[in-house]
Amino acid sequence: MDKKKLAAEHAVASIEEGMVLGLGTGSTVYWMIQKLGELVKEGLNIKGVPTSQETEALALKLGIPLLQLADVHEIDLTIDGADEVSANLELIKGGGGALFREKMIASISRRLLIVVDDSKVVTTLGKFPLPVEVVPFGWELTSRKLSRFGCKPVLRTTAKGPFITDNGNYILDCHFDTIHNPEELNEHLNLTIGVVENGLFVNMANTIIVGSNEGVYTKKKSM
Amino acid sequence: MDKKKLAAEHAVASIEEGMVLGLGTGSTVYWMIQKLGELVKEGLNIKGVPTSQETEALALKLGIPLLQLADVHEIDLTIDGADEVSANLELIKGGGGALFREKMIASISRRLLIVVDDSKVVTTLGKFPLPVEVVPFGWELTSRKLSRFGCKPVLRTTAKGPFITDNGNYILDCHFDTIHNPEELNEHLNLTIGVVENGLFVNMANTIIVGSNEGVYTKKKSM
Repeated sequence: MDKKKLAAEHAVASIEEGMVLGLGTGSTVYWMIQKLGELVKEGLNIKGVPTSQETEALALKLGIPLLQLADVHEIDLTIDGADEVSANLELIKGGGGALFREKMIASISRRLLIVVDDSKVVTTLGKFPLPVEVVPFGWELTSRKLSRFGCKPVLRTTAKGPFITDNGNYILDCHFDTIHNPEELNEHLNLTIGVVENGLFVNMANTIIVGSNEGVYTKKKSM
Repeated sequence: MDKKKLAAEHAVASIEEGMVLGLGTGSTVYWMIQKLGELVKEGLNIKGVPTSQETEALALKLGIPLLQLADVHEIDLTIDGADEVSANLELIKGGGGALFREKMIASISRRLLIVVDDSKVVTTLGKFPLPVEVVPFGWELTSRKLSRFGCKPVLRTTAKGPFITDNGNYILDCHFDTIHNPEELNEHLNLTIGVVENGLFVNMANTIIVGSNEGVYTKKKSM
């Protein structure tokens, strides 16, 4: 079985009757949502909170009941993917551009479960360029400020011009190579004028489910 | 003479030939820009960087040469107004909604000179509701997070619906009454997911010029 699918279907076992569930975005989570759709058809009673327009559309198609974020005070469990996962369960997310909604939903989740294939697991974060969502006005200035943290920021583009997030902002993909202190960097980035949010998720993930050729393994946050 | 006009015209004395000047926004700065326009007509050579579309339009009308922010690495002096100024030269700005651009421009200014009338000078910040610019998506959730810092956030509205900033975001006017530690609050706010920027300017202003019925007085940052 596909490694991503393997991890995603394993994650579904954590879902319990009556939960409010954060529904992540991406190619691994896709399989989790497919499986969740089957369980809902079989009578499972949950309510979902999607992290992107893409996930919202998929969930609606599968008949998964959804809540408006405005009405949600706490989420029981969020299942999402990641672009990189460190040994300490720190994450880089945002390769797909949905980092803002994903991080906002993670911030009100009691548990964050991450599903990845083993290619995403690293010792130290940073090989994957860190996505930083920035206000379009003055982005060149913001980019210069970010480069002082030791990275090379590159404006994400499409054939039509700059990539635009769901919030109407730009993404600077910041090439660090190695991120030594993700917690400190997360704060420094968010205190920089022009930065809306960044793709570092620190002290957020509780459990990682990794799909590999040898099967599935799980890493839990040490307390 | 009008107190605002008095302070603003006094501030013009700080402008020197060849400077790159940040041009603030608001009813007090309006007079400074008028006076600057006269000086430019008389041959003063400066270049301006406007903090809002409103100021940009006014400066263009007066023939003040402008730079694109993307091309500016450092600003010699920015002259701007404020909604409240504390005894320690901390500021609340953003009553007009331009706090993002104003703060970004202040952040690359070697000197920030604030012009106000004496009604803006307070012992402790907080009577004026602190404007916080937030991403529209999930703003209700962001508002709930902000209320945990001890304030009552109120969505700024117009006759047509929510007030929209130049960046396409919303403003939450946060009623604190008293802000005991502006530096700490500034960090807490900017580390909150959903917050783009807030109207606290801490360790930014070097000089305040205050217009009063008794004339003009100046306060400088103690080193």
